[in-house]
Amino acid sequence: MYEGVVQELIDELGRLPGVGPKSAQRIAFYLLQTEDDQAQKLAQVLMEVKERVRFCEVCGNVTEETQCNICRDSRRNRTAICVVEESKDVQAIERTREFRGLYHVLGGAISPIEGIGPDQLRIKELMARLGNPEIQEVIIATDPNLEGEATATYLTRMLSPLGIKISRLASGLPVGGDLEYADEVTLGRAFEGRRTVN
Amino acid sequence: MYEGVVQELIDELGRLPGVGPKSAQRIAFYLLQTEDDQAQKLAQVLMEVKERVRFCEVCGNVTEETQCNICRDSRRNRTAICVVEESKDVQAIERTREFRGLYHVLGGAISPIEGIGPDQLRIKELMARLGNPEIQEVIIATDPNLEGEATATYLTRMLSPLGIKISRLASGLPVGGDLEYADEVTLGRAFEGRRTVN
Repeated sequence: MYEGVVQELIDELGRLPGVGPKSAQRIAFYLLQTEDDQAQKLAQVLMEVKERVRFCEVCGNVTEETQCNICRDSRRNRTAICVVEESKDVQAIERTREFRGLYHVLGGAISPIEGIGPDQLRIKELMARLGNPEIQEVIIATDPNLEGEATATYLTRMLSPLGIKISRLASGLPVGGDLEYADEVTLGRAFEGRRTVN
Repeated sequence: MYEGVVQELIDELGRLPGVGPKSAQRIAFYLLQTEDDQAQKLAQVLMEVKERVRFCEVCGNVTEETQCNICRDSRRNRTAICVVEESKDVQAIERTREFRGLYHVLGGAISPIEGIGPDQLRIKELMARLGNPEIQEVIIATDPNLEGEATATYLTRMLSPLGIKISRLASGLPVGGDLEYADEVTLGRAFEGRRTVN
């Protein structure tokens, strides 16, 4: 145990996801020893982030305004909404430059184990957005795991009666991967989703 | 890229040792989404740590007072000083409960590559402490790597003329380890340092 505030810093750092006790200690001493004001800068950003960051009132993405950059961007295609679990997923899809429509961030996925049901997700807000006749397609881009699949199934059932086109991201072999290292489920999906090329 | 302060937080977190861009993003969103005041608490501790933590005027260990807990503790054996590179090493040795003397924290090790010579370490302060005739033994506990060994050799040369007993921590096989997985240098040291048992 260290004295007072050093131990407090190690404890607080150790509560962060993916930071174990050894890393926490290493980061704490790094911050103690750096000459510049890195600790103060981090402290300041941490204060600001909770004050300034909110969630877009339309799509639920993180933003510092009432609406996020993407919802405010008039060049985006307003006929398609891509539904994701988290803001991180928005960033991941934006990096592909494949999609120029709008997003809807659910804030998680259905998970009975963690006590997250449809009511804890921003599904009601999604339904409200779909009242706009401009929207022609909903792309469901939840994670390809148990919770994500359950959420996708639930959404498909809810949205089907609306008569809008609904699609899911393709599952299959990761590009650059090795076929022999793919798990059976992924390989199975790759077979299922095979495409005619001639 | 995220908007404004979220990206700033990710950038600041990513500057910490052992935190890559993905972990930084994960921690940032964790802090954004936790209900309680964890971000504020961390911010506050970060501010306090730089204000309150200083280095013990005697041994160089981290403390919130002029002298650290160990230097102030009258029950410690004041005839032996254990020389270590960092405050972290003091904690590691304290956990063994093997040593009840005092410490001296050098603040690093000699490393020509990083431009750290003897003058950047707290060696002058150590020499000053050894002016006290009470001190009978110096235990050199620098890391068993290139820099640590160089520092130990330098210290041994500096301290030899003083006529104090100087010792080094033993090198050898780690307890609970497997002999076949030990590297050659460690195994060589274990041979060198073998002890008669009958």
